[in-house]
Amino acid sequence: MTRKPTASLTDLPGEFSFIRRCFAGLAGPAALGLRDDAALFTPPHGRELVLAADAMVENVHFLPSDPPDTVGGKLLRCNLSDLAAMGAQPEGWLLTLARPPHISDEWFEAFSLGLKADQERFGLTLMGGDTTSTTGPLVLSLTIVGSVLPGQAVQRRGAQAGDGLWVTGTIGDGALGLQALLGNIPDPSGILARRYRTPEPRIGLPLYGLASAAMDVSDGLMQDAGHLARENGLSVTIRAADVPLSEAARAAGSSWLETCLTGGDDYEILMAVPPERELALQRHGALQTPHGPVSLTRIGTFDAATDSGEQPGVRVIDAAGAPMVFKRGGWSHL
Amino acid sequence: MTRKPTASLTDLPGEFSFIRRCFAGLAGPAALGLRDDAALFTPPHGRELVLAADAMVENVHFLPSDPPDTVGGKLLRCNLSDLAAMGAQPEGWLLTLARPPHISDEWFEAFSLGLKADQERFGLTLMGGDTTSTTGPLVLSLTIVGSVLPGQAVQRRGAQAGDGLWVTGTIGDGALGLQALLGNIPDPSGILARRYRTPEPRIGLPLYGLASAAMDVSDGLMQDAGHLARENGLSVTIRAADVPLSEAARAAGSSWLETCLTGGDDYEILMAVPPERELALQRHGALQTPHGPVSLTRIGTFDAATDSGEQPGVRVIDAAGAPMVFKRGGWSHL
Repeated sequence: MTRKPTASLTDLPGEFSFIRRCFAGLAGPAALGLRDDAALFTPPHGRELVLAADAMVENVHFLPSDPPDTVGGKLLRCNLSDLAAMGAQPEGWLLTLARPPHISDEWFEAFSLGLKADQERFGLTLMGGDTTSTTGPLVLSLTIVGSVLPGQAVQRRGAQAGDGLWVTGTIGDGALGLQALLGNIPDPSGILARRYRTPEPRIGLPLYGLASAAMDVSDGLMQDAGHLARENGLSVTIRAADVPLSEAARAAGSSWLETCLTGGDDYEILMAVPPERELALQRHGALQTPHGPVSLTRIGTFDAATDSGEQPGVRVIDAAGAPMVFKRGGWSHL
Repeated sequence: MTRKPTASLTDLPGEFSFIRRCFAGLAGPAALGLRDDAALFTPPHGRELVLAADAMVENVHFLPSDPPDTVGGKLLRCNLSDLAAMGAQPEGWLLTLARPPHISDEWFEAFSLGLKADQERFGLTLMGGDTTSTTGPLVLSLTIVGSVLPGQAVQRRGAQAGDGLWVTGTIGDGALGLQALLGNIPDPSGILARRYRTPEPRIGLPLYGLASAAMDVSDGLMQDAGHLARENGLSVTIRAADVPLSEAARAAGSSWLETCLTGGDDYEILMAVPPERELALQRHGALQTPHGPVSLTRIGTFDAATDSGEQPGVRVIDAAGAPMVFKRGGWSHL
């Protein structure tokens, strides 16, 4: 980790000890003890690298009152989800943080504990980073490094008309969890809040040879399905009744279905699967990963692109096959 | 680039077009058109990777009134300097930005032009990133990826007692440039401001086989020389009169020497050189790089560690060999 010269010299011992106290325990071999200007990483022999970066901002993506270990864990898990969407294995991560005075050392100690637990679970280590001060909200930026066998990364492009649209896990729990934390919806078991704060990245999902295209659902199922369709010059039709909902989401009632389908924060994997490979999926209903079985549900079909007006790329139909209407640039009516 | 689900759906078209307008022109092959969840990078065959991340914060590291192209360029150059310090070649970079409403699209367009010019000059391309909103100052976080032949990365550890302390270029121009921009010092040629805003990363410096240890000078010569010494369990003595100053820095007068030696923002390379290799350096006085010749100056010597009181690791002597005294945790008197 390096420091910026505009900080005063007298801040230094505190800042170096801050890095040592909070982050040295997370550093892997590539980090060179966090002493150097950069990390030194030997890529796994014969593999391609997958790299992604995501930032989280206080009051935008988390609240100061959120448990700091879950803030750390979520930051890492959102990035892990980007690796999972390409079928990549985690290797390491770098972190920069712009730290305001109102966030205590104790907050960061708990924050790093969340990161430590999750990096151990998912098999990667801290490589390096930077810490600086800010007068604004806390800004966290994480870059993740993964690897994949050459040619086996699954991308957003590759779907064809006739492919099925499949999704892992259940949709909407994260968006409902945020509403639960805002007091807008009951969450007696706490499961919705947990899904919002601790999404489950689908690391280890065997996408290669199965999915023709894939991405993770972070911006909402509707919107991300539209992205996937448009990237392939296709339309996609989602059957609303087939979208997998958790018991907790069903208990919230149908008035929350729009939130489930458009709210985002799912970190499930959305994929296109060619018809000839769908039979095996229908037989199994779940895929094995190193982190346990992951359910898979067929929720729609890709078609040749048509001019569908305001929402090119994606449409949603009800159980009777009738198109559904959307409001606020997204989902409207069920 | 990915977006966070907490942004409203209606922001999306604007945000995607923002990314396309400002950053698509910088994307290299690994970026997959900035369409995917992550970049896909084939590491150069048989090389190790060097990774570093640095953040810059509005009002801490730059001002909104700074020319935006130089803000972009400096962000990249500071990271390039971390690669240069290990003798690594640039490969690519990722960027996250937390954007406040008061920074215009036009600002970012100019910002990206600075990045584009510098990535072309130094031979790397944008791989990916993330853009999000903030209520606070603009926060920019850049992760850089470089490569080096196995075993040839020069690290901070490796110096031995008797090694000489050498530094590239001139010291203090950046720190004086900040003072010039603050109106505290004349800068008729503008050269000091230019050195502050557009540091010259020493990419391509042939450190391997020459330096036993190296780092870049970002926190001030004094402090960074101390880091280098302490990392090796050594002390280092700097001869103040030997520290290379530019004509502009000499013109500022001796009252600014403390600023030169402690102010930072130099982005020169500080290295330990074993005695048997120093002769060649003394003969040449400069090293060739793909970006032109870089001068090298011997400014001190590493010794076995001694208990030097308040400043273990580093001491500075004047032309008569007398130790110099420091104030404010740093440099005091000349």
